[in-house]
Amino acid sequence: MTAIHEIPCDQCLRARLMGIDTHEEAIVFMREDCAICRAEGFTANTRLQVKSTDRSLIATLHTVSAGVLPSGVIGFSDSAWEFLNLSPGDEVEVRHAPLVHSLSALRRKIDGYELSEHEINGIIGDISRRLYSDIEIAAFLTTCATGGVTRRETRALTDAMVKSGNRLQWPEYPRVFDKHCIGGLPGNRTTPIVISIASAAGLLIPKTSSHAITSPAGTADTMSVLTRVDLSLRALKRVVNETGACLAAGGRVGLSPTDDILIRIERALNLDSEGQLVASVLSKKVAAGSTHVLIDMPVGPTAKLRDQNQAQRLARLFSAVAEDLQLVLRCVITDGTQPVGYGIGPVEEARDVLTVLRNQAGAPADLADRAVLLASHLLAMASGESDAHCQEQARHLLTSGAANRQFERICAAQGGLREPTGARYQAVLQAGRSGVLAAVDNVRLAQLAKLAGAPSSPAAGLRLHVKVGEEVSQGQALATLFATTPGELAYAEEYYSRNHKLFYVGEPPE
Amino acid sequence: MTAIHEIPCDQCLRARLMGIDTHEEAIVFMREDCAICRAEGFTANTRLQVKSTDRSLIATLHTVSAGVLPSGVIGFSDSAWEFLNLSPGDEVEVRHAPLVHSLSALRRKIDGYELSEHEINGIIGDISRRLYSDIEIAAFLTTCATGGVTRRETRALTDAMVKSGNRLQWPEYPRVFDKHCIGGLPGNRTTPIVISIASAAGLLIPKTSSHAITSPAGTADTMSVLTRVDLSLRALKRVVNETGACLAAGGRVGLSPTDDILIRIERALNLDSEGQLVASVLSKKVAAGSTHVLIDMPVGPTAKLRDQNQAQRLARLFSAVAEDLQLVLRCVITDGTQPVGYGIGPVEEARDVLTVLRNQAGAPADLADRAVLLASHLLAMASGESDAHCQEQARHLLTSGAANRQFERICAAQGGLREPTGARYQAVLQAGRSGVLAAVDNVRLAQLAKLAGAPSSPAAGLRLHVKVGEEVSQGQALATLFATTPGELAYAEEYYSRNHKLFYVGEPPE
Repeated sequence: MTAIHEIPCDQCLRARLMGIDTHEEAIVFMREDCAICRAEGFTANTRLQVKSTDRSLIATLHTVSAGVLPSGVIGFSDSAWEFLNLSPGDEVEVRHAPLVHSLSALRRKIDGYELSEHEINGIIGDISRRLYSDIEIAAFLTTCATGGVTRRETRALTDAMVKSGNRLQWPEYPRVFDKHCIGGLPGNRTTPIVISIASAAGLLIPKTSSHAITSPAGTADTMSVLTRVDLSLRALKRVVNETGACLAAGGRVGLSPTDDILIRIERALNLDSEGQLVASVLSKKVAAGSTHVLIDMPVGPTAKLRDQNQAQRLARLFSAVAEDLQLVLRCVITDGTQPVGYGIGPVEEARDVLTVLRNQAGAPADLADRAVLLASHLLAMASGESDAHCQEQARHLLTSGAANRQFERICAAQGGLREPTGARYQAVLQAGRSGVLAAVDNVRLAQLAKLAGAPSSPAAGLRLHVKVGEEVSQGQALATLFATTPGELAYAEEYYSRNHKLFYVGEPPE
Repeated sequence: MTAIHEIPCDQCLRARLMGIDTHEEAIVFMREDCAICRAEGFTANTRLQVKSTDRSLIATLHTVSAGVLPSGVIGFSDSAWEFLNLSPGDEVEVRHAPLVHSLSALRRKIDGYELSEHEINGIIGDISRRLYSDIEIAAFLTTCATGGVTRRETRALTDAMVKSGNRLQWPEYPRVFDKHCIGGLPGNRTTPIVISIASAAGLLIPKTSSHAITSPAGTADTMSVLTRVDLSLRALKRVVNETGACLAAGGRVGLSPTDDILIRIERALNLDSEGQLVASVLSKKVAAGSTHVLIDMPVGPTAKLRDQNQAQRLARLFSAVAEDLQLVLRCVITDGTQPVGYGIGPVEEARDVLTVLRNQAGAPADLADRAVLLASHLLAMASGESDAHCQEQARHLLTSGAANRQFERICAAQGGLREPTGARYQAVLQAGRSGVLAAVDNVRLAQLAKLAGAPSSPAAGLRLHVKVGEEVSQGQALATLFATTPGELAYAEEYYSRNHKLFYVGEPPE
């Protein structure tokens, strides 16, 4: 028996891939003179619902002149094509996008009302179904950042984001650990070391990390220099069952995928609000099946958390929402006055991680100390032993080489350990005067590394040669800048030359 | 002597019009494998600065595959092409968009700080120079709507928006009048009648109106049914000098053009916040050279202003900012419980305007009364006479035909008066039960007219047959729906069938 295919349809068009990459924003292209556009009143920027055989999405219309497409054909941006799983010539149906009901909840939030769990589920559900345009997502994130998000709203956001994706379960393990850093401190790449120490001690710690949001590198960016990180759900489970841990990227595993949609707009707006932050972090942890979570909170005048008050407030929100979600959570406030380690950017941070794990000469002591401190808190959460005891235990696991062996096992299970390779273009940043390095501006330093191309060019970034408190003489190298293209190197150098307070050299001590 | 053209340039590409309409958002298209993309690290959604011989703009990059463009060629969306005033094959230079400094002020606003005049000038200036992406504009509008805008900020916003465009001056006239309606009430098309009465009384009232923001018609939409409204600055001055008034669209005159950029995003987000509203209205008035401004504020449960408190608060902000700007301003709170007149949508409202001005049988009395009331306030502001006296004067100017003759003079000066022509497709909306029409939902009614195609199809919209308080019997026509395409008619009918509270018919009186 032959299936009856392709029933003729008034609203149907043949699909064509335009070869236009618009990132995540779904765009479709239709002729402005096409019968459907005229009958339906579609014009440029109309929001359309497009249905393929088995999927549907909302896209923004860009109309094209007659020369661009044959009649009866609709063009797709790369991401829209992929989302609808289309092949050339497939029939699709288009109509006006239905009213997105949760937009009235967004409106209520803008008007200052607290949203109900139902309303937040509606918003996150509609975002995950690609019903929101980029400016609507921007409005949602901005109103949350401006008006604040209550504890109840944060909990509801977390739940809704967990529901929008996959969940890992570890039925054989009563306790599942995880750690997260609030960020804002370039080079603070403790995670690979902490996970190696903690899992060497026997903790189950299946770590998934995101790529950088607004920083020059995230743990996923650094780890992808050293091994394969885009594991499938199945591969991730295998790695964890083999080693007790993993150091994977969150993306392909599909934990809280709506968070990734939000993060794309947050990144473009350089926005990272408290409620969103807590929901983003905890949704990933709940989806990963965690029961015990450690939060690293660096505080410093140019870190993300500027002072103790801000850190305490965030810690309270984390603890409250974690309690609602029945997570055991501990926040550790750490020094955020300057970068940790010497490297900034995926490759340079990966180098630091390896020297610490390998106990090599020249390894950054501050990175090793920070990793030991954080790992010891995880050990204390697991055993209930004293902090001093756990610090000693963590230090021993690092210096004995146990952590490094564990790191090598994890990388081997993920596809093998690679040594990092450097950048083609470099420039030395010199001190403009003699004195003492009094302060470093973390924000401008991150900007500098990003202008050099990090994280999208992994080898781009910086290597610091001087730490705060050390003496420097005029002309001495403060740092080396790395880039993979001359354009980016020049761009970063120009930024350095205009930002004298990036490294602040004060009077030498009398 | 021959000019030396086309110096070879590393960063130069040849311009090509892609034939893709993206509305205002500037998009450029470059091959992902092009040398410049690789050297500079450009990827999809990178923000680029593009320079032609004499202009420059910031655009969003969409990368294309090799088949779409030849190498060495850069494609432009329609609006980017027009803004840069390009011809095919022109050389343009591309580089990373410079850091937009005012984004740090936007960030401060999101963090809850009041912005200085300098910071607001920076934001509005950068938006007017097309340095903001759509999501950045959305973030600015949303944070203003959520966090509120202070009196000082509103004044600074107004000033900055005035500075971004042209200013009209009327040196021979000591007093220049204007009126504005807050909106939210479908069909409330008093402006053409008010302007005709006021200018018939000798007031100078050069009225520029915007197209609809979130409603099915603005005055500019309605007037463009009846005459030419897109006047140049020069034509507008000529019309005003000839007639004492005009009824033009604001767009081409270039008064507060940044407001138009903001309005495009406000419309997409269905957002209309207090501070933005005051700045938007008053910037147009100041730029138009007004000294005396009347604000119509309809209040009703489904109007934009829901209650007296909200109206009083808005009136206070209007008065305070007007005082700072040395404008004489009067706010009139009017009944906003149901539409004014019978027509909704550009053509149907134009019909109402004409029947009132012509004193024809069947003219909507509520529209005539409202126009007389508003005109009388303008007359009172001018003469200082009592409200009762001015009402009588305004009524006489309307019923005597003086206002109509004045309207005809204005239209003649703008290019001639046209009679409106109706829509091809119609459907009658019937009462589901007998009783008394107890209430009408203005918001849903506006939505219905917009789904039918208003205002982009001028003939689309509604004609009401029953007013609140009147008795209806089951099956009686409550309204007629108009559309220019069958798809839009069906769409609007479906919406009507799902929204029973659009017309609320209650029990008949005993």
